[in-house]
Amino acid sequence: MSEEILRKLALQVRNWGRWGPDDEIGTLNFITPEAIASACALGIPLQREGPQSGTRQRFNPIHTMFRDGGDAPKTPAEVTALQGYGGSDDWIVMPLQCVTQWDSLAHVFYEGQMYNGYDAALVTSSGTAKNSIDKTKSRIVGRGVLLDVARWKGVRALEPGYAITVGDLDATAAAQRVDVRRGDLLLIRTGHMSRYLDRKDWRHFDLDDSPGVSVHTAPWMHAREIAAVASDNYAVEVRPSELPPFRSPFHICSIPNMGLTLGEIFYLEELAEDCAADGRYAFLLVAPPLPVTRGVGTPINPYAIK
Amino acid sequence: MSEEILRKLALQVRNWGRWGPDDEIGTLNFITPEAIASACALGIPLQREGPQSGTRQRFNPIHTMFRDGGDAPKTPAEVTALQGYGGSDDWIVMPLQCVTQWDSLAHVFYEGQMYNGYDAALVTSSGTAKNSIDKTKSRIVGRGVLLDVARWKGVRALEPGYAITVGDLDATAAAQRVDVRRGDLLLIRTGHMSRYLDRKDWRHFDLDDSPGVSVHTAPWMHAREIAAVASDNYAVEVRPSELPPFRSPFHICSIPNMGLTLGEIFYLEELAEDCAADGRYAFLLVAPPLPVTRGVGTPINPYAIK
Amino acid sequence: MSEEILRKLALQVRNWGRWGPDDEIGTLNFITPEAIASACALGIPLQREGPQSGTRQRFNPIHTMFRDGGDAPKTPAEVTALQGYGGSDDWIVMPLQCVTQWDSLAHVFYEGQMYNGYDAALVTSSGTAKNSIDKTKSRIVGRGVLLDVARWKGVRALEPGYAITVGDLDATAAAQRVDVRRGDLLLIRTGHMSRYLDRKDWRHFDLDDSPGVSVHTAPWMHAREIAAVASDNYAVEVRPSELPPFRSPFHICSIPNMGLTLGEIFYLEELAEDCAADGRYAFLLVAPPLPVTRGVGTPINPYAIK
Amino acid sequence: MSEEILRKLALQVRNWGRWGPDDEIGTLNFITPEAIASACALGIPLQREGPQSGTRQRFNPIHTMFRDGGDAPKTPAEVTALQGYGGSDDWIVMPLQCVTQWDSLAHVFYEGQMYNGYDAALVTSSGTAKNSIDKTKSRIVGRGVLLDVARWKGVRALEPGYAITVGDLDATAAAQRVDVRRGDLLLIRTGHMSRYLDRKDWRHFDLDDSPGVSVHTAPWMHAREIAAVASDNYAVEVRPSELPPFRSPFHICSIPNMGLTLGEIFYLEELAEDCAADGRYAFLLVAPPLPVTRGVGTPINPYAIK
Repeated sequence: MSEEILRKLALQVRNWGRWGPDDEIGTLNFITPEAIASACALGIPLQREGPQSGTRQRFNPIHTMFRDGGDAPKTPAEVTALQGYGGSDDWIVMPLQCVTQWDSLAHVFYEGQMYNGYDAALVTSSGTAKNSIDKTKSRIVGRGVLLDVARWKGVRALEPGYAITVGDLDATAAAQRVDVRRGDLLLIRTGHMSRYLDRKDWRHFDLDDSPGVSVHTAPWMHAREIAAVASDNYAVEVRPSELPPFRSPFHICSIPNMGLTLGEIFYLEELAEDCAADGRYAFLLVAPPLPVTRGVGTPINPYAIK
Repeated sequence: MSEEILRKLALQVRNWGRWGPDDEIGTLNFITPEAIASACALGIPLQREGPQSGTRQRFNPIHTMFRDGGDAPKTPAEVTALQGYGGSDDWIVMPLQCVTQWDSLAHVFYEGQMYNGYDAALVTSSGTAKNSIDKTKSRIVGRGVLLDVARWKGVRALEPGYAITVGDLDATAAAQRVDVRRGDLLLIRTGHMSRYLDRKDWRHFDLDDSPGVSVHTAPWMHAREIAAVASDNYAVEVRPSELPPFRSPFHICSIPNMGLTLGEIFYLEELAEDCAADGRYAFLLVAPPLPVTRGVGTPINPYAIK
Repeated sequence: MSEEILRKLALQVRNWGRWGPDDEIGTLNFITPEAIASACALGIPLQREGPQSGTRQRFNPIHTMFRDGGDAPKTPAEVTALQGYGGSDDWIVMPLQCVTQWDSLAHVFYEGQMYNGYDAALVTSSGTAKNSIDKTKSRIVGRGVLLDVARWKGVRALEPGYAITVGDLDATAAAQRVDVRRGDLLLIRTGHMSRYLDRKDWRHFDLDDSPGVSVHTAPWMHAREIAAVASDNYAVEVRPSELPPFRSPFHICSIPNMGLTLGEIFYLEELAEDCAADGRYAFLLVAPPLPVTRGVGTPINPYAIK
Repeated sequence: MSEEILRKLALQVRNWGRWGPDDEIGTLNFITPEAIASACALGIPLQREGPQSGTRQRFNPIHTMFRDGGDAPKTPAEVTALQGYGGSDDWIVMPLQCVTQWDSLAHVFYEGQMYNGYDAALVTSSGTAKNSIDKTKSRIVGRGVLLDVARWKGVRALEPGYAITVGDLDATAAAQRVDVRRGDLLLIRTGHMSRYLDRKDWRHFDLDDSPGVSVHTAPWMHAREIAAVASDNYAVEVRPSELPPFRSPFHICSIPNMGLTLGEIFYLEELAEDCAADGRYAFLLVAPPLPVTRGVGTPINPYAIK
């Protein structure tokens, strides 16, 4: 009886084939650009083949199933016993900074302290008592600006080790006819990720030298009062470091001192094409963090919406 | 030498105390409503105290540290050896549907098939070959509409077991003066989550009876061509089931048959207050999935932006 | 060609049905009591239904597959492409003290110190620098002695809250005609686990009151110079505590002060039957830890061998 | 009051310094060779630096803390509130076959079937319904025999790609004056692991060519009715395969057909030294599996006891 009612309803609403035999998104097809905004997604895939080598603790996401097609009920009696036709369920193990991500302000210490002077000892094995990522839960949406430095330089990708200067940033903004304003979420494209996408192999992305911003851009960002900065490389800043033995001097200036949120491993290829095509390098950037209580980072899939 | 240059830069850009001694978000304070849109965040916290009892496999997120303040270098020699002042890094183990989330179209089977007729056997321990959540990577942004059924009924929360009817949906929309359009991302508030928030205890949220939509609303949603539907309960639909022994008949109609993306455990309290205050129940909803390759669900933190 | 050679070899060595149609251990059947020692296994199952409620962080083991039968090659072409007929592979997420286990000497602190006076700060998010479980890698084998206090008392299980005294230990040893010697691995049966096994439900095992040793047995163990002590309850010692507000005073005496290794959640039912049957309460106990570098506990499956 | 009683007891039983200022095993020192058997431990460390490259899904163990020294109570008020002086607790994520391990009889399929003819489809994302490792829970103890083929050949390690023949096994046994009997747990030393231990770098252990048994030793093992075979390489058998395109032909003969339990990545260096020193190549081998319900493998730390 229930079965018949259910089958009748199911067939009544069935949309199989409505968007072709290969469709995999169903009613999301109803969202059309006419009706609403279109978006460029800036998050890389979460999968075993990814940018982490495991060398410095971080590994690529490990995704696995609780239940799959092999566990589905196969007879009417099983369907009844299991209260349905079955389904699938999955889970994941991942570093919070293994893919496209925001660093929280608890991620880097300077002389034993975090941003705003909090003691580094407040970060224990149970997480951080201050500057955790969930504090930014509803805050990471705003005017986004892309500075495509590689394109302005006329190259597919800046050379590994190239330190982007204040002059580069100003010149790129001028060439792209976009201004950087207070409160902006600034995206800087070095082209570095293109190398790995071109070769279809992420290996060594976290270890190789890389173009990135110079530590000397920190005062420029401070003066412009930007809200956050993100890039298409592993660590925003240039590698190798300009100030050895410090591995990440820009991180030290920006996170614990300036309180500047950094975004890393941003996929900017499609957005860069789109901006070049229409000449508009500003947009609405929506990049919600997962509100991990006491967390120090978060995976994200930001949307750039025009 | 490097140390002095770094310290000079660090102090030059330091913002400690700029937003008060208790600030934890730094330069994100530069994002002000005047400059950009404000957002209501719809994601619940990711933490050990959460809605999962573990009874049906899903557990609450387990968050842990690779490195914390106890691992930070303590002497200048350690700072040099470790190439910096140290920092923290964390990781997480979690079911992809343990918090605020989207179900993919591979999540529920009907008679051995998924949406669009794909064989359930395509979901194996390595994930799903069809209808995976990453197919929706850039697609979940659009016009959002909130139907606050509990408020329209004049109650804090609908009773557990109450099945929301087509009449309820139409009447709520009329009372709130909002229309439901093709391509909408529809949010339905039952008030059920308020119970657990009020008692500050998530326990049994996944097990208790719950208000939710009737299976008979499926044709209404089909006719209106909505893109997705989400709610503030565990499973969108009413519990106990209207069609026993099937535990989740609405899921069966919507996911494998209609190809309708479902959102669950949405935190709608602040958004409901905001909509009641300004009388505007439509907004831009941005709810990017994490693009998990072969994944069947994703945790999210959607933003409702006005 | 390879395929034919392989099939010929495979069929030549095939043992299907040799030990009946229901056999699942194959050539391990060749190990017979005549040839070698028989063993009682003291480890409980690693599965989702287990003794951990999740209340104090620990959860039951989460076991999952990388590859399963659904991923196996199905055609000759797939067999060739995947270099074989396929197989299965699995992994686990588990607290190191969630099942039958040894505590390391880094598990409990006393006034900021571990066993032998090491600073508790040596245990950071990357594990412990001192007293880690891998230091005991080859050491946990020796004369085992079972004191079945419940049986001596003539009960199926001691009452929750019952504190086993020095007198109980001495009287049980005398009744069982076994002496406790220097270097022994001492097993104490309270019968508490029987309750949960009888009801086939582990729930609340970690939360309920429990019989267990009195804190005042610590000097007795110290004087006898035993090597380790283990029991069939959650924490060896009685609950509730005899010295509130301290939750685990025997732990404090034994682990950081005495340096006594504790074993918990030991399955002693079969061993107790065996000892009662033959009147021999001493045996070879082999309980190898997993040598987790910097670890503070380990799951085990000890063997008692006569 | 409780505090004073506890302190008095604690100091009474304190063993700090008893075995020197560097001791980390406490009362396990009471287990002396005079009192009991000594053991060689055959398990490798569980740590991030290990034999898994991640290339074929398996990764090295990821060990992490719930609680550490940074979380310990620091004031008397905190000690009271937390009901003790605190401690540490840890957990692990690991493939069940990532370190020294047993394969279960569900690990490899042949033409869609497992050992004893069970259907490979019985292994789903929730584990295996047949031939799971917990079926061997109390069975893996018996007469162990080491055949140190590398030593017999007079080399530190056999060359990668060298296939150990039946002749090699017989000659080694004869030279070592040990016979292989029905029910034996046979350990074969290739010396391959020595290479990685010598260079203190596990990398590529799972990928490199390796010495190992020839597929043509399977009938020899079958005839001798051994119970299990283990080796100090990654997969017992030689790599590259003698029967391409099949990657692991010996696995196919032994696991699904013969029902022979295989042990891999055994640390045999100390045991080989010990056997060479006393000329005794037979011993008691105790290698308890973790009884993972529905599991297809298990990490182990076997003890060879003389």
